[in-house]
Amino acid sequence: MRSSDELRASSDTPFPDAYARAGVDIAAGNAAVARYKDVTSQWRHPSQLAAIGGFSGLFELPGDPTRALVGSTDGVGTKILIAAEARRYGSVGADLVNHCVNDILVVNAKPLFFLDYLAVGKLDPDVAGQIVAGVQRACRAHDCALLGGETAEMPGLYARDHFDLAGTIVGIVDRARVPDPARVAPGDAIVGLPSVGLHTNGYSLARALIPVEDLSAPLPGAPNGTTYLEALLAEHPSYAAAVRAIEEVADVKSMAHITGGGLLENVPRTLPATCKAVFEQARWSVPPLLAELVKRGALDRDERYRTLNMGVGFTLVVPREDAADATAAWPGARVVGWVEDRAAGDPPVVVHPARG
Amino acid sequence: MRSSDELRASSDTPFPDAYARAGVDIAAGNAAVARYKDVTSQWRHPSQLAAIGGFSGLFELPGDPTRALVGSTDGVGTKILIAAEARRYGSVGADLVNHCVNDILVVNAKPLFFLDYLAVGKLDPDVAGQIVAGVQRACRAHDCALLGGETAEMPGLYARDHFDLAGTIVGIVDRARVPDPARVAPGDAIVGLPSVGLHTNGYSLARALIPVEDLSAPLPGAPNGTTYLEALLAEHPSYAAAVRAIEEVADVKSMAHITGGGLLENVPRTLPATCKAVFEQARWSVPPLLAELVKRGALDRDERYRTLNMGVGFTLVVPREDAADATAAWPGARVVGWVEDRAAGDPPVVVHPARG
Repeated sequence: MRSSDELRASSDTPFPDAYARAGVDIAAGNAAVARYKDVTSQWRHPSQLAAIGGFSGLFELPGDPTRALVGSTDGVGTKILIAAEARRYGSVGADLVNHCVNDILVVNAKPLFFLDYLAVGKLDPDVAGQIVAGVQRACRAHDCALLGGETAEMPGLYARDHFDLAGTIVGIVDRARVPDPARVAPGDAIVGLPSVGLHTNGYSLARALIPVEDLSAPLPGAPNGTTYLEALLAEHPSYAAAVRAIEEVADVKSMAHITGGGLLENVPRTLPATCKAVFEQARWSVPPLLAELVKRGALDRDERYRTLNMGVGFTLVVPREDAADATAAWPGARVVGWVEDRAAGDPPVVVHPARG
Repeated sequence: MRSSDELRASSDTPFPDAYARAGVDIAAGNAAVARYKDVTSQWRHPSQLAAIGGFSGLFELPGDPTRALVGSTDGVGTKILIAAEARRYGSVGADLVNHCVNDILVVNAKPLFFLDYLAVGKLDPDVAGQIVAGVQRACRAHDCALLGGETAEMPGLYARDHFDLAGTIVGIVDRARVPDPARVAPGDAIVGLPSVGLHTNGYSLARALIPVEDLSAPLPGAPNGTTYLEALLAEHPSYAAAVRAIEEVADVKSMAHITGGGLLENVPRTLPATCKAVFEQARWSVPPLLAELVKRGALDRDERYRTLNMGVGFTLVVPREDAADATAAWPGARVVGWVEDRAAGDPPVVVHPARG
């Protein structure tokens, strides 16, 4: 859902069938987007700049028109219900910060500061302290100030042990360094960075498919007896260091953070309308948790790639000749697909399944 | 609750007795503050500046050390439960923006941009559209870009008709224009700007004291048959225009936004430790809604002035000789008290009740 420039995506936007069963309504999401566009199109601040892909909003830096401030707000989604259920609060703060870092990374912005919003039914200082410690840890890892925050105790809105966690990041970018998707051309390679699981999207679906009593069981296909719970709470990684390393050796034309909407909805946001992305599933592996959700939900191909990241957390479009250097620059980076000409009627994304 | 510089106040922080009855725990709030301080004191970004009073956080403007970006995050608190109950969504967006505008106004910052976070149990595009329209309206009134936002549908966390609304504002200030509370001296006048009701604090208490069936009844003492509901949903005003007008004619040494914690907790945050604020209740009137809450809750003097704003929404400290010009500059502005020497053992705020 779009307000001005940042895409307003329901944290768990994805897809009709599987998702509607889990209580998330994509049609309502699209209708809300339309309302937001109506509302925000009536007036626009002159310092607001065109944003790319809607992962964040850009605002001309006061006093320096060559740079822009970049803002993005996000939440952890219903991953927090799993954290609350398990009483494990150490990683949700980093989930939040890293999600926001990746959102502004798409336009090449470097974090400046962060503010968090923690809402609880019943304030437990230990729990709140653990959550904010996770926020601070991830901020520090990005040399990003934790500038403030709000903790609200709201009996009546949240159940006693429930909480919600959202946050806002502000970063900065040289406008000349904002990637220009218009440069993307057929033949370019798409480099993917591996996901570690659901990150912060798809949890309403996961909660619908994995009963609480399964949480402590070993996850099929996962190493070292990893449980469902551990896999579900795996921390949303920051791709900042990987992107910086790849930019050192490759001409990065466009990037996308693969959040709600998966490869199918996030990648086209940063491609020209004349290009399509063609992914080859055989080129990367699907994390065990996602494979299990596909199986339990009997998700068809469209559902899989629209609801889940399916193993790719972040994509970068580079010239074909830079692809080998790009993938060598970061462990786990690999070519996951290609840019091709998009003919009239073609979908903007095609995923070829793994053979066999 | 303090993280770095911005005070992390539970939206409904206030006071033990009345508040604890309403389910809000001040001791837990203070304990959480202590945890946050532990966490955030371990590392601080070098561009983070000392903030005043903790209403917002300051960060040196990249490229211009004479200016600072000012950030603040807040929520609407349980006022949204009343809006949801009444299905009236037009004003909560402005409540949120104006609250945030006032928080950064305390350091004289002018809004640049805003991002909102809307979390819902079941996404109703009409409702979401009304809420965001209110956010946009209040942003536009402050020439503030609505840079983005997040809408999250989270079945399982929120009841079907419930929602939460929070937001983050980023503004800018010339550092030389940040008020310096060290200049406050005994004899200075405290100018108060009138509140219109609870603003965005005290709603858990109000909900405990005013049963749903009373909402459509006329509020005792209110003009023109105003109902409890109308009074409860009265929009949190922005004090930006009033403060600008007063600054034109008076030397403003310090300001405070009277939110959770009331006059007793907010005013001392912007006074030197050697000064106390002495308020004379006879100098202003208490809005009918607050008078009714005092009566229904049998709130003692400390509870009243710690839980409710009691009719003063914003305070400015000016030299005694500027007081007449200051109050003449804005309708409703009046001298509500004085700064006096604070001896050892004195409380930082004294309120003399109205006589009679």
